[in-house]
Amino acid sequence: MTVPTHPSTEVPPFRRVTVLGLGLIGGSLLRALRQTGLEVIGFDTEPGAGAAASAAGFPVAPDAATAVHGADLVVLAMPLPEVTPALRSVGPHLRPDTVLTDVGTLKQPVLAAVREHAPGVRFVGGHPLAGVEETGWAASDPLLFRDCPWALIFEPDTSLTAWLRLAGLVCDLGARPVPTTAADQDTAVARVIGLPHVLAEALALTGLAGGSLGLSLAAGSYKSGSRVARTRPELVTSWCDGNAALVGALDDAIYHLTSARDALAAGRSVYPLASAGHAARTNWEHRRFEPVEVTTDPTALVGHGRAGGWVTAVLRDDDGVRLLGMRPI
Amino acid sequence: MTVPTHPSTEVPPFRRVTVLGLGLIGGSLLRALRQTGLEVIGFDTEPGAGAAASAAGFPVAPDAATAVHGADLVVLAMPLPEVTPALRSVGPHLRPDTVLTDVGTLKQPVLAAVREHAPGVRFVGGHPLAGVEETGWAASDPLLFRDCPWALIFEPDTSLTAWLRLAGLVCDLGARPVPTTAADQDTAVARVIGLPHVLAEALALTGLAGGSLGLSLAAGSYKSGSRVARTRPELVTSWCDGNAALVGALDDAIYHLTSARDALAAGRSVYPLASAGHAARTNWEHRRFEPVEVTTDPTALVGHGRAGGWVTAVLRDDDGVRLLGMRPI
Repeated sequence: MTVPTHPSTEVPPFRRVTVLGLGLIGGSLLRALRQTGLEVIGFDTEPGAGAAASAAGFPVAPDAATAVHGADLVVLAMPLPEVTPALRSVGPHLRPDTVLTDVGTLKQPVLAAVREHAPGVRFVGGHPLAGVEETGWAASDPLLFRDCPWALIFEPDTSLTAWLRLAGLVCDLGARPVPTTAADQDTAVARVIGLPHVLAEALALTGLAGGSLGLSLAAGSYKSGSRVARTRPELVTSWCDGNAALVGALDDAIYHLTSARDALAAGRSVYPLASAGHAARTNWEHRRFEPVEVTTDPTALVGHGRAGGWVTAVLRDDDGVRLLGMRPI
Repeated sequence: MTVPTHPSTEVPPFRRVTVLGLGLIGGSLLRALRQTGLEVIGFDTEPGAGAAASAAGFPVAPDAATAVHGADLVVLAMPLPEVTPALRSVGPHLRPDTVLTDVGTLKQPVLAAVREHAPGVRFVGGHPLAGVEETGWAASDPLLFRDCPWALIFEPDTSLTAWLRLAGLVCDLGARPVPTTAADQDTAVARVIGLPHVLAEALALTGLAGGSLGLSLAAGSYKSGSRVARTRPELVTSWCDGNAALVGALDDAIYHLTSARDALAAGRSVYPLASAGHAARTNWEHRRFEPVEVTTDPTALVGHGRAGGWVTAVLRDDDGVRLLGMRPI
């Protein structure tokens, strides 16, 4: 089988990257990008974050328009409510071939904002699954993205070249580009980000509602189960609100919990749920994968992601770009 | 104020301890007890566990009756279904002053089993909140109990002397004796152990039910939220089944989840739950305590535990035993 490739001359590596927003993700990205040898510059509307990055030796621009000057990649790394103002600020200052990406949890709202406020920009939505409950520049870590899945979005108007350039950069950061669409991503994220956060909040609240003795006895399982409830509630909200798929995910979880509750109330066992949950979790840990060469075609790539695959390398040679990946066995 | 004490001559330290059941908790206890200078001996009905402990240099008895010979403390560290057979085996071989304790998650079932199968034994129920999802001797760790809460049960027929001897030993292991009753303990544990496990099972199952893309994107929040679903389902079941208080805890959690679900479905925000969950979790982390001297009286001790306090030291001097503790400010 001949795997279609893409001319390598059209997929040049990035040289200069601007990161707008220097919190946990943006700050970690600034650090990680510089480690790969790229020219980087940052900006944050909050002066304290910019000052901290500057004190750590990173170039920081005085404003967003200056920050994006000459950049061939601009990363929106601010919270969702600040994306629209940022698009308005920098949209007019981007070169036609500049690639714009973001790192937000939900891809459909960002896509809608780009289409409204920066139409015609070469946008490729992105989402590194790399959060921790700490936030801010102080928590930034250049190794944050190692081995982490990183959703990279194809929409009908997405430039394949821009997508491939970004996928190559994500591989350089040690992360795993997962090709998908905005709608598929948001549906998946409802179950693996939205749901865990809502359950953690419910546990954090309910677990401690039984009085002071319970506060003393809360230990390992309460602690890990409620860990992400330490996240600022404004962030949790921005990862959940407006994601219709989370309603169905919550319905499923409530169904399982109600079944367990009714079993207990009737003097029966929670074993069916415990057994099914244990199997799901351990099967997930024991998944196996095999290397594969992936066609450089949006439809094939999205199918690869939907089947549980990701990209491991973007290889450039005289014949063009070839994509290596992994897929579940 | 004069704080009542207890004659120290009646509260001698233990010298020889038998641990029956050499899994994670029993094995860790055997290791930790020997580190405090006590004479220890173990036994497990499963020959592999005994052989592993023996290979690690610990004395292991050929049967339970031999194991408890001469012991002034016997610890039941087997899973709940094996407690009754163990009580039948060792009950007739205990000296009148031998203290019997256990390490199970639910205290009422063990108490009922002791009253039925070993009446008259000096039993003090115990529960170290020290589990991890690994099990078996291979996971045992002498430091497992450091700083962990350890519920120690008072019932109307509990010997205060036996309780104080055990509290002293728990302090020697670096853990925190929390005085409580079997009913209070089980009610508290429903929320901080049963509930986290049932929620983790529901997350493990529901989170991954969205297809292969979700399996790829599941990351930090799914992983920590479902961590305890790695526990063997038989153990989870033994911590949940029959605990009536877990029904109410699940009702509360389902109520919060349903409210969040309905808000999302109506285009509103999950912020109220996220905010309340975040506050509960962070307030829990930031609790503050003060040292206090605790009366050596069962009613006062149970009240101390119910108020969120624990024991930090059992001091023996010529005037008797004094108890130091911590309580929430």
